[in-house]
Amino acid sequence: MNKAVLGVDVGGTNIQIGIVSETGTIVNSKKYRMNIDSQEKAITAIIESIDDFTQNADSLIAIGIGLVGHVNAEKGVWESAINIPISTPVPLANLLSEKMNMPVYLDNDVNAATLAEMNWGIGRQTTNFIYVNVGTGIGMGIVEKSELFRGSTNYAGEVGHMYIGQIKEGFGDGYLETICSGGGMIKQALEGLKMYPNSILSSYHQEGHLHSSTIFHAAENGDPLATIIADQAIEGLAIGMTNIVNLFNPEHLVFGGGMFNNKSLIENIRQYVNEHALPVARNSLKGITITNLNHNDVGLLGAASIAWLNQECL
Amino acid sequence: MNKAVLGVDVGGTNIQIGIVSETGTIVNSKKYRMNIDSQEKAITAIIESIDDFTQNADSLIAIGIGLVGHVNAEKGVWESAINIPISTPVPLANLLSEKMNMPVYLDNDVNAATLAEMNWGIGRQTTNFIYVNVGTGIGMGIVEKSELFRGSTNYAGEVGHMYIGQIKEGFGDGYLETICSGGGMIKQALEGLKMYPNSILSSYHQEGHLHSSTIFHAAENGDPLATIIADQAIEGLAIGMTNIVNLFNPEHLVFGGGMFNNKSLIENIRQYVNEHALPVARNSLKGITITNLNHNDVGLLGAASIAWLNQECL
Repeated sequence: MNKAVLGVDVGGTNIQIGIVSETGTIVNSKKYRMNIDSQEKAITAIIESIDDFTQNADSLIAIGIGLVGHVNAEKGVWESAINIPISTPVPLANLLSEKMNMPVYLDNDVNAATLAEMNWGIGRQTTNFIYVNVGTGIGMGIVEKSELFRGSTNYAGEVGHMYIGQIKEGFGDGYLETICSGGGMIKQALEGLKMYPNSILSSYHQEGHLHSSTIFHAAENGDPLATIIADQAIEGLAIGMTNIVNLFNPEHLVFGGGMFNNKSLIENIRQYVNEHALPVARNSLKGITITNLNHNDVGLLGAASIAWLNQECL
Repeated sequence: MNKAVLGVDVGGTNIQIGIVSETGTIVNSKKYRMNIDSQEKAITAIIESIDDFTQNADSLIAIGIGLVGHVNAEKGVWESAINIPISTPVPLANLLSEKMNMPVYLDNDVNAATLAEMNWGIGRQTTNFIYVNVGTGIGMGIVEKSELFRGSTNYAGEVGHMYIGQIKEGFGDGYLETICSGGGMIKQALEGLKMYPNSILSSYHQEGHLHSSTIFHAAENGDPLATIIADQAIEGLAIGMTNIVNLFNPEHLVFGGGMFNNKSLIENIRQYVNEHALPVARNSLKGITITNLNHNDVGLLGAASIAWLNQECL
């Protein structure tokens, strides 16, 4: 077997572990339960899952781990997280590399997905791109000259906290994540139901399927509250991405995340950027596209990319 | 004499030329008139000025030229400009290096000023910073790991075109440059005078000294129109810079430009960023300061920096 790395994608519910080849093929993978009862239990769950998975694995040359929260990639330290109770920095890379006897690298999940794009996605066409994931929240990775732009503490790309002002007749506090993310849209809906108690979103909520996709669906069917929320999400994302094009002058803008199941969203962003971005920035932009990477694989491919990135440096 | 470079700072009115040492000392400099009647006359004015200045200069090893508009720094081509009528790309670096028999490098004026900061300003303390110039317009340069972040066509940093929404009770279209730049503030004032014909800004306008500084002064004296414009400029800049801190995660944020003659502005930005930026981004930020570089020298130092930057690569 050719040499491969282990990718470990740590989420609040599951830990997905898999062997990934240099060409981005997932050779073998398995899902484990995450434990978020305490920091200690979370770390133990990660270590034990890796331990179990690697019983039958050979040819591994490195491990890459994708984590939520603030990660010091250089030092291999998981600094903090909110969904998973990490309150004291954990030197997870050192801890695991001693145990596993191979190099271990960490990064946050958005940088990981961006590296997957660089290796096996849009990076095949360009060395300068922005990756934006719009799901429950909004995350962004920045690549220039085939390198991640990390900022001073590996925290660059917090586009969800970009203030773009109130959307006319909309709800919310003017931040991109509040207006445009899945989680934000649900919050807007719950808030809006006070003013629109007869909205279909009320039954969706009671039935437990109030999501961005059902809000978009209700908007298409003319529900007034859903229409406000859907419109402001679409407009907000278009404004936000135009800011990003003007600020970063990327060659490609590539999107991932559940929000783009709504097919009109990408077309709307293309049109708005085309009309509102600065001419030079707009003309330099070769594409606004949805990722080709499979939604279910991107976490694992991203985690593996962290390891592959560092292998190339060795 | 030690080796030195020639810095050429090209503006719409003047061309400033000077000899700059590796430590950032301006050995000798002279101002020439710019000609913006046509593209041909503009290029001729630049060439003749350099020709004249270098009659008595020796020890020069390279020339750096700072230009307005869109510059392809890699190819040494002045692609386009608006204030100066450049409508066809000019291969100015090649043109001049043949004539002057030494390497010639170009870049835009904001990147140039940012490089001056990197060499002789905030760059002495950090390798990751953002430089924002607020004068007639707003420009931004991004430095990560002591390198300029240029984007795909050397056009990154167009923060003036960042949309941040309407400021409550303010005027304007929601773009940072309209709200916060000197030019934008004057436009807001002229627009606002229709609603506030008795404002002191009306006399300032007639007397020909309607500037950001006089608007700030009138606001301090309680003029209602000036107060609206000053307040929205201060708030807008604070919001905009908070977005920048969240997006770029810099270690230092350094400001230049005439707007910062208003002493309360920087303090207001510090306070707002401290209250509104994300905790990790805020804690990574070591300083929000005004540049130490002399306002009158920065154009020349910037132009020279373009040449020094490339010397180091040789």
